[in-house]
Amino acid sequence: MKQYQLFELEFHGAEPEGSRAVIDMEAVFTWKSARTGEQKSKKVKGFYDGNHVYKVRFLPEEAGEYQWQVTGCFREEGCENCEPAKEYDKGIIRANGIRFEYSDGTAFLPVGTTIYALAHQEEKQIAQTMETLKTAPFNKVRHCVFPKYYEYNHNDPRLYAFEKDTDGNWDVNRPCFEFWKHLENVIFRLAAQGIQSDLILFHPYDKWGFSILSMEQCRIYLDYLLRRLAAIPEIWWSMANEFDLMYARTMDEWYEIEEFIAANDPYHHLLSNHNCFSFYDFTRPNITHCCVQTTQLESAAMWLEKYQKPLIYDECCYEGNLPMSWGNLSGFEMANKFWQACVPGAYASHGEVFLDENEVLWWSKGGMLKGSSPERITFLKGILEELPGTLEPWKQKQWELPDQGLMSKAPEDFFKKLYDGMPKEQQESMREKDGICCGHVGDQVFLEYFGRRCCGMVRWILPEDHTYRIEMIDIWEMTRKVVYRGVKGKFAPVLPGKEGIALMAVAEF
Amino acid sequence: MKQYQLFELEFHGAEPEGSRAVIDMEAVFTWKSARTGEQKSKKVKGFYDGNHVYKVRFLPEEAGEYQWQVTGCFREEGCENCEPAKEYDKGIIRANGIRFEYSDGTAFLPVGTTIYALAHQEEKQIAQTMETLKTAPFNKVRHCVFPKYYEYNHNDPRLYAFEKDTDGNWDVNRPCFEFWKHLENVIFRLAAQGIQSDLILFHPYDKWGFSILSMEQCRIYLDYLLRRLAAIPEIWWSMANEFDLMYARTMDEWYEIEEFIAANDPYHHLLSNHNCFSFYDFTRPNITHCCVQTTQLESAAMWLEKYQKPLIYDECCYEGNLPMSWGNLSGFEMANKFWQACVPGAYASHGEVFLDENEVLWWSKGGMLKGSSPERITFLKGILEELPGTLEPWKQKQWELPDQGLMSKAPEDFFKKLYDGMPKEQQESMREKDGICCGHVGDQVFLEYFGRRCCGMVRWILPEDHTYRIEMIDIWEMTRKVVYRGVKGKFAPVLPGKEGIALMAVAEF
Repeated sequence: MKQYQLFELEFHGAEPEGSRAVIDMEAVFTWKSARTGEQKSKKVKGFYDGNHVYKVRFLPEEAGEYQWQVTGCFREEGCENCEPAKEYDKGIIRANGIRFEYSDGTAFLPVGTTIYALAHQEEKQIAQTMETLKTAPFNKVRHCVFPKYYEYNHNDPRLYAFEKDTDGNWDVNRPCFEFWKHLENVIFRLAAQGIQSDLILFHPYDKWGFSILSMEQCRIYLDYLLRRLAAIPEIWWSMANEFDLMYARTMDEWYEIEEFIAANDPYHHLLSNHNCFSFYDFTRPNITHCCVQTTQLESAAMWLEKYQKPLIYDECCYEGNLPMSWGNLSGFEMANKFWQACVPGAYASHGEVFLDENEVLWWSKGGMLKGSSPERITFLKGILEELPGTLEPWKQKQWELPDQGLMSKAPEDFFKKLYDGMPKEQQESMREKDGICCGHVGDQVFLEYFGRRCCGMVRWILPEDHTYRIEMIDIWEMTRKVVYRGVKGKFAPVLPGKEGIALMAVAEF
Repeated sequence: MKQYQLFELEFHGAEPEGSRAVIDMEAVFTWKSARTGEQKSKKVKGFYDGNHVYKVRFLPEEAGEYQWQVTGCFREEGCENCEPAKEYDKGIIRANGIRFEYSDGTAFLPVGTTIYALAHQEEKQIAQTMETLKTAPFNKVRHCVFPKYYEYNHNDPRLYAFEKDTDGNWDVNRPCFEFWKHLENVIFRLAAQGIQSDLILFHPYDKWGFSILSMEQCRIYLDYLLRRLAAIPEIWWSMANEFDLMYARTMDEWYEIEEFIAANDPYHHLLSNHNCFSFYDFTRPNITHCCVQTTQLESAAMWLEKYQKPLIYDECCYEGNLPMSWGNLSGFEMANKFWQACVPGAYASHGEVFLDENEVLWWSKGGMLKGSSPERITFLKGILEELPGTLEPWKQKQWELPDQGLMSKAPEDFFKKLYDGMPKEQQESMREKDGICCGHVGDQVFLEYFGRRCCGMVRWILPEDHTYRIEMIDIWEMTRKVVYRGVKGKFAPVLPGKEGIALMAVAEF
């Protein structure tokens, strides 16, 4: 047993009677916390893996001596010494305020990509994808349990999550063990490359019937999935992709699914739900972070403040050349959206959809990356990783402008009232126009990204009690240049008047 | 007297007693309509022009025999033969549906620019601006009666609209005749270059007190202005720039101003009002067209349909390099906004604000153009002018996609309900993402602009009963290339997958 690593017990016995998904098998793990001295225990459920094999999986999050006791269809017990994690093994990622952290407190900066039907491709294709990911910036992949049926996705997978009954209907009580082993294998291979699986449990682009399972079927499916996968540290639960497009589901059913996951995941992995139109209710306590589909990048700071949870623009359109509105960003624009998200302290996910005569588009099938954004995302990631902490929104002070004539006599709140009085559906363009994109790490780093604004000069106010060096960053050319040193307080740096420029102040010590 | 040209009668007499702005002088012009045979007459007011000179101005819109009779402080009469206009003299511009037309029915395609304080600069500067305008694409200039006080605008003008009283307050009853002659001169010089004056009657950026005149003062000012300028054919009334920032004015007062102008302008020049936050109420019958400040370009078709009036994005940010959010568009983005506006049948106005050590920024002072958008706007204008008619929104039919799996079983109106259920302040990004930008001229021309979308292929449905040649347009490179001929019905043209591409189908005969 190793801290932060999946531990597995295996038992052999007769085929389960009745459901092969929901079986009577529990295990209790008991240990003494090395940190607090407290006696602790955790109950997990076992699962059937076919071929007379039963398994119990457990994720130890502390080093020390563990006792375990299996009950139900097996009655066994034992003990294990759990070795402390190596320094590089940082544990499971959870949310803390607006940031993500490994168990050891190290920040995790998600840099996502989307390969929806990764597990449903042939091995050759999966292997190529894994190879591509080795040199890509991505440390989180959104991918689905169920296969995808959509344009450019017409290949049936070899394996499905369930077997069919004699009437040809999915039998959720008979998991397809080979499928689950295969899915796990994909998750493990990603994990071995340092990549989290943001696993999508439901989605609407379906021809097989997985999107219209009954709630009873859903519970059985989720029960099996959680017994089997919850002990994998590198996993996040995305309840759905575009949950609101699943017309057969009511909101109450979504809440039930959410609560079922929260109640049956002993480790409380990260949990969110991805929208097409309206966001899921991220204020719900089980929801650990905001997973949004929107192009409203200028609202990142507003939503971070509103929800006080990490925010990922998991879908903000994809780099590519499709006719569809969501699939034809330039490489610059994809990188631009990453900068817009990350500077105030949110995150983004990449996707890539270039027309391909073999229907191999990265966003659902992986393969090779063709776009120009990944290189720029790597550049951004490098900058974020060298910061002394994680970014949060910077409420920049404005320069007091000299004499504004009679406008300075406008009543207090005059502009706020004008904004509030706008038709709501027109406020966004005002926010987008006037919004600034900036973040800071305490007093140590101040960062502003100007996006498509071609400023020749800007007006900053830095703290007076430090001096700063100022770096100018070109997100497209991927250049960084120190342009000022020893700066503090009010100052007006000169900029090159082009798109894709960021300015970073780093405290000098 | 010439059709469509300002006609002026001049009288000499003693200085007016009391107000020099609102004097007792009317003229009635009577003629027989050549077109309908009907007897017609129009009443106009005269004005005092200082130095014992009184004038009556009249704009004849039909050729023929005119009688005139002056009453009030002068009693005179006479007759004039009004020569028919030369072919190039097309008359006054008015709105007809969503388009602008000269009196002779010729379409006017406004291509605006903004030089707020044009009339308040020194002659050398004005002359240079006129020179610049000779080779620029613009045929409408927004400029102000009152001077502008704002950043980069710190020079006091030589002349103001009124004289001051002995207490140093503006006396609206004592127009500064030299100012008005100067302002007219600017308007006439623009007109001589084929440029309409979109004359801004009020605005908030003021230190002199013109933005806080009493309503009584406003009426006197407007009365004089209308007596004096209304007979100039090349003039439009813009009640204000950013009317909503004039905190001293109530909405009822704006309606009163609007009604005063409508009641006292014998020719019903184009009349609108320009916002900062919320639009003026364009449904009001006096309002001839929608003058908007917004970056919500994707809503052009929606607003054209809603208001059924011409729509001008008179402010959608400016090309330049200022720190302010509204003043740092790239040349591409300024041209991009023009295309977004014009393709569905709306219009846009340009502005340019490059930092300049002498504080000469085009948007308020004119001078020289430095940006890269005017050349692209000329290119666009050339395409619009060669069309066989004016564009209107094209409700493109969508390709029926093949089998969409279970998604095809979604209830009718499912997507509409999801959209309607979104938080209103988030609908815009959805509209922006999914919005298409396309227009047509009957069955003769179909035009789609892809903006920042880098499509490698698109899906069109053209009529089946014509064939079309397809031109690909690169708005930045300013190239046009015929890429297909003999096309009809459903077809999927290949595109280069870059920003700034438009596709135009022109019926082959």
